[in-house]
Amino acid sequence: MTASEALPKVLDRVDRDLEASLDRLFSLLRIQSVSTDPTYAPQCRTAAEHVAADLRSLGLETSVRPTDGHPVVIGKSPLGKTGNGKSGSNVNGKAPRVLFYGHYDVQPVDPLDLWKTPPFEPRIETLAGGRKIIVARGACDDKGQAMTFIEACRAFKAVTGSLPLDITMMIEGEEECGSKHLFGFVRDNAAELTRDLALVCDTGMWDGETPSITTSLRGLVYEEVRLTCADRDLHSGLFGGAARNPIHVLADILSAMHNADGAVTIPGFYDGVHDLPPDIKTDLAGLGLTPEKFLGPIGLKIPAGEKGRMLIEQISTRPTAEVNGILGGYTGEGAKTVIPGKAMAKVSFRLVGAQDPEKIRIAFRDFVKVRVPSDCTVEFGNFTSAPAFDVAFDNPALGKARTALAEEWGKKAVTIGAGGSIPIVGDFKSVLGMDTLMVGFALDDDRVHSPNEKFDLKCFHKGIRSWARILAALAG
Amino acid sequence: MTASEALPKVLDRVDRDLEASLDRLFSLLRIQSVSTDPTYAPQCRTAAEHVAADLRSLGLETSVRPTDGHPVVIGKSPLGKTGNGKSGSNVNGKAPRVLFYGHYDVQPVDPLDLWKTPPFEPRIETLAGGRKIIVARGACDDKGQAMTFIEACRAFKAVTGSLPLDITMMIEGEEECGSKHLFGFVRDNAAELTRDLALVCDTGMWDGETPSITTSLRGLVYEEVRLTCADRDLHSGLFGGAARNPIHVLADILSAMHNADGAVTIPGFYDGVHDLPPDIKTDLAGLGLTPEKFLGPIGLKIPAGEKGRMLIEQISTRPTAEVNGILGGYTGEGAKTVIPGKAMAKVSFRLVGAQDPEKIRIAFRDFVKVRVPSDCTVEFGNFTSAPAFDVAFDNPALGKARTALAEEWGKKAVTIGAGGSIPIVGDFKSVLGMDTLMVGFALDDDRVHSPNEKFDLKCFHKGIRSWARILAALAG
Repeated sequence: MTASEALPKVLDRVDRDLEASLDRLFSLLRIQSVSTDPTYAPQCRTAAEHVAADLRSLGLETSVRPTDGHPVVIGKSPLGKTGNGKSGSNVNGKAPRVLFYGHYDVQPVDPLDLWKTPPFEPRIETLAGGRKIIVARGACDDKGQAMTFIEACRAFKAVTGSLPLDITMMIEGEEECGSKHLFGFVRDNAAELTRDLALVCDTGMWDGETPSITTSLRGLVYEEVRLTCADRDLHSGLFGGAARNPIHVLADILSAMHNADGAVTIPGFYDGVHDLPPDIKTDLAGLGLTPEKFLGPIGLKIPAGEKGRMLIEQISTRPTAEVNGILGGYTGEGAKTVIPGKAMAKVSFRLVGAQDPEKIRIAFRDFVKVRVPSDCTVEFGNFTSAPAFDVAFDNPALGKARTALAEEWGKKAVTIGAGGSIPIVGDFKSVLGMDTLMVGFALDDDRVHSPNEKFDLKCFHKGIRSWARILAALAG
Repeated sequence: MTASEALPKVLDRVDRDLEASLDRLFSLLRIQSVSTDPTYAPQCRTAAEHVAADLRSLGLETSVRPTDGHPVVIGKSPLGKTGNGKSGSNVNGKAPRVLFYGHYDVQPVDPLDLWKTPPFEPRIETLAGGRKIIVARGACDDKGQAMTFIEACRAFKAVTGSLPLDITMMIEGEEECGSKHLFGFVRDNAAELTRDLALVCDTGMWDGETPSITTSLRGLVYEEVRLTCADRDLHSGLFGGAARNPIHVLADILSAMHNADGAVTIPGFYDGVHDLPPDIKTDLAGLGLTPEKFLGPIGLKIPAGEKGRMLIEQISTRPTAEVNGILGGYTGEGAKTVIPGKAMAKVSFRLVGAQDPEKIRIAFRDFVKVRVPSDCTVEFGNFTSAPAFDVAFDNPALGKARTALAEEWGKKAVTIGAGGSIPIVGDFKSVLGMDTLMVGFALDDDRVHSPNEKFDLKCFHKGIRSWARILAALAG
């Protein structure tokens, strides 16, 4: 029986087993695996062991692998260890060996008082109109999403006795704090982790009815600029007019960073940014993302990005420069007539295409330095430098996944660029030489990273079914 | 015995009583009378009562008068209440009845960690070379300076049994937050407060050896700009490129406020600003204030003001626009990829000549509003609006004070324009019809409004002696 032949029974099994799938998800959601806060290290360990036991129950050879941070869980198909993928009933010469990536860690829960119920006590809530949602920290990001893949594997195993492909799973515990130790782990275990294709379930749907494949992720460069003019804070009455004000210098620099058309003016910034192929552009236009639809819910109307670009380009396929924070002088109640000695800003860049994070970082610093008066000084700090990532549009897995998703949702899957970044995905390409297929079921209202995070029960259920179909298609 | 006859004994008494004068100053410095922060209201009240007790000890009829903010302390010569000033041994027909003005409130102390010792624990520090300084918040501005006048009165009282003139003292508690309630207080009590001349000790010396009389003060308009774009903070990965960033909008506005030559670009800003008469300009040039001398001690080299103006013009006779504070987005440790919903700046203008504070306020707001995108909102707050002030050069008190200062310091007193503003001084002229004689002993390195504020012990001591001489000269 091929995977495709088994699929109807597998899907039936998914439906009948949904209650038990939910129970397994809830067990994982109850573990307080907040990775950013060191006091939760034991809970992260518990979550890793919980996931390992779950993967073992799928017949995977499983280990909890230490890092200098939280551990990485690795589960491998028994055949996977041979690394040839040529034998076994469910694996043929054409089927890719896959690496599934997910994470068991979650964001902090603060502000706790905004949660309607405790964040680690998962529950099902029925909204007006009968829509059911799973509410808990991690319900969507990424425990719920990762479990859609794991439960799809479980259904195959239950129906056919084995998994439909040679599957390696890597479930890490530091995604929410930048996957700091995963980069080294992947490099150190490159031989073991290099498969034909990576699969990730940590992205979103276009809307509640339209499945999506994320084909690009923007990169990120995050800089801090600390400017010093006078060696102390000054009285603006005594020194005003003669002493350089670092807030003025900073405002001039930040203002100069964009021109009147909303384009970034840093020399070389757009090197490596390519215009979209006309067909992709047409596809994006066809999505009909209007300012009303996208900006209306947050109280805005006018797209702020580059003039002459569609809103959907502005948020997904074009690079940006944003000031994420600024501080200088007196900011308390009332008035203080001070000229501060120092001022600070945090500036980040979302990168696309072949933009080089290191070149952008240097170009930005040069752009700042040349605008700092010679009697003032500037220091920089860097927090992140990650390149953008584009899936190869010619990868056959992309077409197969689109078809599989269309069969599940009754609607063509759209391919979109995501504004955010998943740090490790760039390394899958650059270090392991693999394309990544990113399919996810998050919705815009899932409150990811916020209080009352949720995942639609429908997204969880149809997410499992979607992965079952994709696995069958890839095996096929 | 006339005041002039008593003067030698009075000066001797000042010298012998210096230790006790310092003790009295230290008692006042220990009171945390920060007027801007409402949590310090009780301490402001305590300071007012402390000052009242001190004035009472001089034989003044004293009261702590409520306002809608912090109270005003009024002390009046027993003769003062008759309002004629014609009788009494120390008052003759020619001697002016004077209103002395000072303030008991101080600036906030943040950043606290830059203070070498706690700001409200006054101490004497001996610098290299033996120069002694009084270190504390308010040591100079204005507790130390106000006490030079009070202690001069005390010495007269001790030696002659009474004060040398009909003196009314008004010590307020809101100078550091714009004297908000003092304007109404002065209007409401105009009859009681109208004397022949106002005296103020809240300005500086030309340098440590050269006494100065300040004959003009820049006015002040202080505005807060609060900008709102999205109705919440946004994830820069999801919304970056499409959602308006209020820090960008603010940076554009603040940057546009000056042109490349350092001039303010707000329409109408320079209305009422007149060029100096050639002789005054020559006088100013003759003072030889170099960037090295003025900016060197604070770690700067290049005057930041209007091109083509002397540094001394930039800080005293030209108007300015300064950003005193800015805040938006994430300003903690590390990186957070947020696009904030709000951003805020505090902006103040120093005014000269006939610039109209109200017109400047409106012109600034219009300048901002026209630059705020139509889907964003801006709110304003105003903390101060005070016009610039020029003393009448023909007031006889000016010449008498110059002579008295020359006798104390052995050097001719210079008359200068001060960059800062003392909000109420304009009203002394416009509401009460009085000229103001501004004599002060602050030095450029006093760190007024900054951490480790200090007042030279020599300035305190010779300041008391200077006022004793001026009082004698005015009485004579």
